[in-house]
Amino acid sequence: MAPASVFDGVLATDQYQLTMAQLYFEEGLADRTAQFDYFFRSNPDYGTHQAGYCITAGLDWLLGWMEHVRFGERDLQILRDQATGGGGRRFSAGFLDWLGEHGDFSAVEVDAVAEGRVVHPNVPVAIVRGPLAMAQILETAFLNRLNYPTLVATKASRVKEAARGRPVLEFGMRRGPETGVHAGGRGALIGGADATSNLALATANGIDAKGTHAHSMVQVFMALGIGELEAFRRFARLYPDECTLLVDTIDVLDSGVPNAVTVFKELATAGHRPAGIRIDSGDLAHLAIRSAALLDEAGFGDVPIVLSSDLDELVIWQILSQIDTEAVRYGLDPAGVVGRMVFGVGTRLITSHGDPALGGVYKLVAVQDAAGDWLPAIKVSEDVAKVAVPGAKQVYRLYSGDGLATADLIAVAGEYPFTADTVDLFHPHREVNRRLATADITKVEELLGAVFRNGRRVDPTPTLAQLRQRQERDLEQLHPGVRRLVNPHIYHVSLTAAMKQRQRELVRAALDSAV
Amino acid sequence: MAPASVFDGVLATDQYQLTMAQLYFEEGLADRTAQFDYFFRSNPDYGTHQAGYCITAGLDWLLGWMEHVRFGERDLQILRDQATGGGGRRFSAGFLDWLGEHGDFSAVEVDAVAEGRVVHPNVPVAIVRGPLAMAQILETAFLNRLNYPTLVATKASRVKEAARGRPVLEFGMRRGPETGVHAGGRGALIGGADATSNLALATANGIDAKGTHAHSMVQVFMALGIGELEAFRRFARLYPDECTLLVDTIDVLDSGVPNAVTVFKELATAGHRPAGIRIDSGDLAHLAIRSAALLDEAGFGDVPIVLSSDLDELVIWQILSQIDTEAVRYGLDPAGVVGRMVFGVGTRLITSHGDPALGGVYKLVAVQDAAGDWLPAIKVSEDVAKVAVPGAKQVYRLYSGDGLATADLIAVAGEYPFTADTVDLFHPHREVNRRLATADITKVEELLGAVFRNGRRVDPTPTLAQLRQRQERDLEQLHPGVRRLVNPHIYHVSLTAAMKQRQRELVRAALDSAV
Repeated sequence: MAPASVFDGVLATDQYQLTMAQLYFEEGLADRTAQFDYFFRSNPDYGTHQAGYCITAGLDWLLGWMEHVRFGERDLQILRDQATGGGGRRFSAGFLDWLGEHGDFSAVEVDAVAEGRVVHPNVPVAIVRGPLAMAQILETAFLNRLNYPTLVATKASRVKEAARGRPVLEFGMRRGPETGVHAGGRGALIGGADATSNLALATANGIDAKGTHAHSMVQVFMALGIGELEAFRRFARLYPDECTLLVDTIDVLDSGVPNAVTVFKELATAGHRPAGIRIDSGDLAHLAIRSAALLDEAGFGDVPIVLSSDLDELVIWQILSQIDTEAVRYGLDPAGVVGRMVFGVGTRLITSHGDPALGGVYKLVAVQDAAGDWLPAIKVSEDVAKVAVPGAKQVYRLYSGDGLATADLIAVAGEYPFTADTVDLFHPHREVNRRLATADITKVEELLGAVFRNGRRVDPTPTLAQLRQRQERDLEQLHPGVRRLVNPHIYHVSLTAAMKQRQRELVRAALDSAV
Repeated sequence: MAPASVFDGVLATDQYQLTMAQLYFEEGLADRTAQFDYFFRSNPDYGTHQAGYCITAGLDWLLGWMEHVRFGERDLQILRDQATGGGGRRFSAGFLDWLGEHGDFSAVEVDAVAEGRVVHPNVPVAIVRGPLAMAQILETAFLNRLNYPTLVATKASRVKEAARGRPVLEFGMRRGPETGVHAGGRGALIGGADATSNLALATANGIDAKGTHAHSMVQVFMALGIGELEAFRRFARLYPDECTLLVDTIDVLDSGVPNAVTVFKELATAGHRPAGIRIDSGDLAHLAIRSAALLDEAGFGDVPIVLSSDLDELVIWQILSQIDTEAVRYGLDPAGVVGRMVFGVGTRLITSHGDPALGGVYKLVAVQDAAGDWLPAIKVSEDVAKVAVPGAKQVYRLYSGDGLATADLIAVAGEYPFTADTVDLFHPHREVNRRLATADITKVEELLGAVFRNGRRVDPTPTLAQLRQRQERDLEQLHPGVRRLVNPHIYHVSLTAAMKQRQRELVRAALDSAV
């Protein structure tokens, strides 16, 4: 295994970024300013259900990486050693010298939507301007470090939505993608998970890691002939103030819960408050109701019940729906049972079950000519109407009288189209528009801001609490139809008239040149 | 962002491993030898298709991690700082002292199936024996570092199968799971991918990274008014011996391929051999056929055609089937077209599209009593017949006269049941058996071997070439029905009579004690 730093460094990129960068260098274009936009074209689609929005995640770690990496001597040596099929050196001394001198991200500027915000398809989530060669090399890092965390943050937000606000614990380390679980777990915490079992991740974020015991703990004491009750008792003795007991090693209702109740009574007598039970198999909703009844009976009506085992947003939805209808059969108030639920969500959160990749792209939008004017870049083989518009941009989020976000409007930077009585909103790809009375817009918010300048993050690293606040505030301001777990409404993303005009000109020029 | 080393170190585990370890310490059990088995219960199921086998991956990196990590002062301080809900310290000074002294994996022994081998459900892929506390803490690392690479290796093997042996390039970095792409990419290389675009991963493995250029390169030259042909020409001038041109920025047949042909002719005149074209959008099979015809016409019948864009095993299968039937319509020999295909496989390989997690488990099998005798551990709530059998084991792979592997046989260590005329093979979970004539077994191979002793890997790190050889040899020896991409045959995994006897006794004891 090579030194870990090869994976942490600037060579964590696709090879072709380097071959292209060298071509730009040879053509005298390496320092020419270029613009790339990062965005995605559609929300995750999980097959039977689909997301109506995304939660951005990964930005601060990406920018932190950009602050620290550069082409150092070891990286240059690795490139120097690359031989072509013809036997020569793939990278020239001239290019490597240039990389040694200019091979960092200090000349790259990034504007972006803040991490933890609700974002929508086709809106530029980040705009990168900088020397063509280094901005090109950055592509892989942008895609690698934003797509996956955003995907998991989005799934976490949906899981939290299904959980009706009850606590969600991220348990994905064991079946997640090796070291990717840290960025994925952080995405989950940003998007809606309340805590994680990942000790390294919790430590890095200054939060308390969650976890009590596994079946193996009970099995050890059973193997030794000591049994489940005594295993629970010893665990409780050591952790009297955070005693959550896993009750399904033998049988939830016949053994686990009765033994937990015995131990909880002993804890209560000694002045401690039992922390909960956890059920990891079986008909979870049914077992939760029956366990709640047993706990109620024993005077532990406030003890939480943690459920785990292949949960995702639909499974949690099903579980809570089942509790809604089934609890009364056991003489319980459904709201009371729901109100004590906690969800441990692992595999299906960390892998974004149903749609394991976000299709985020990092598109070359324009490159400057020798005089510093922007020349738009076009991929003619695509639907020309989908062409990204070059130049500085701003995204306005418009809010209406009910306090809800009503549309995201992509504008030319500096443009403020809200002074007239009405504002025209143009569909990003089609020639349709609608008109909005300015009086109906109660708030206009700029989404894009400078996040990386002069090789440094503009803002200090946000705390997890701050990121979660952004996410919670944005979700409160999102229409319930867009938040819906199945068949969500489509949120409006539009262009201003000025932006639409630029797009039209660009499309016309593209069609002309393609003839 | 916390120091990367928190994520690389021993705290990259689930919190509850530590709370359990402390309980074992307090109960005087931390040093008691325990056995955990790592295995999976079913092959990946992608929904419409399913794997008939898995390829193991991740072992060497896992063992390398075990060699280097231990609880150091910084880790202990992090644990020392953890406070309980009640305000006290979660971890005692005594336990932390013990961890400081015994908190490494030097006393843990691992036997395993070699990395890169074909493996099957229910067969122990690794067996861990060591002090209960440290073997327990190891659980998360085992699952995190073996499940995902094995999953991707398995997918890669299927992709290679679908590709009829044509080259497969791993392109997954951009939409894969952040830093997990390195372990995933390595899994892909072990399982069947011939090369990767991931420069860091290629460097770490001493292989050449693959990649030429993206659409953005052509777009830059188009934006500058220079155009596609001249972009190709300049690229070819810089990389005359590895000139693969991406031909779909404008239009594959009307622009890309004709321009590529022009440049290839110039290259050929100068004595260079063009490396290929790449098509990344559209009806790939159709465009490949038409492009092949154009290349043939121009005298470049041997130039490879690289296809990319959301490929997986079924898409590649479809593409090659379409070539089989459609090529003749354009006067081409289908085998000739197929024989020049190369596949760039990204998102769907690195995410194991359709089944994004391997359900590998790390099960406590037994713990020793004070006298050193094994006490089996059982989770009664599971199907008792699925209980894992404690004690040292060996797995024999049996080969038949046609040179194919016919069954994996889980035996008691030291047992060699092939001396009689017949050998009984028992179903792992059901009370059925079949009898095999020993004369029909042409080879018996031991699958489990010592891989970690005294804190060190037993064998040197295998090269990628060695790992791929293992994989290729195993696949050659696997029945075509088991290799089948859809509805594969089930490979036989059996227990020996002695192992079955142990399992029966265990189940009986479990049922008795559960009464």
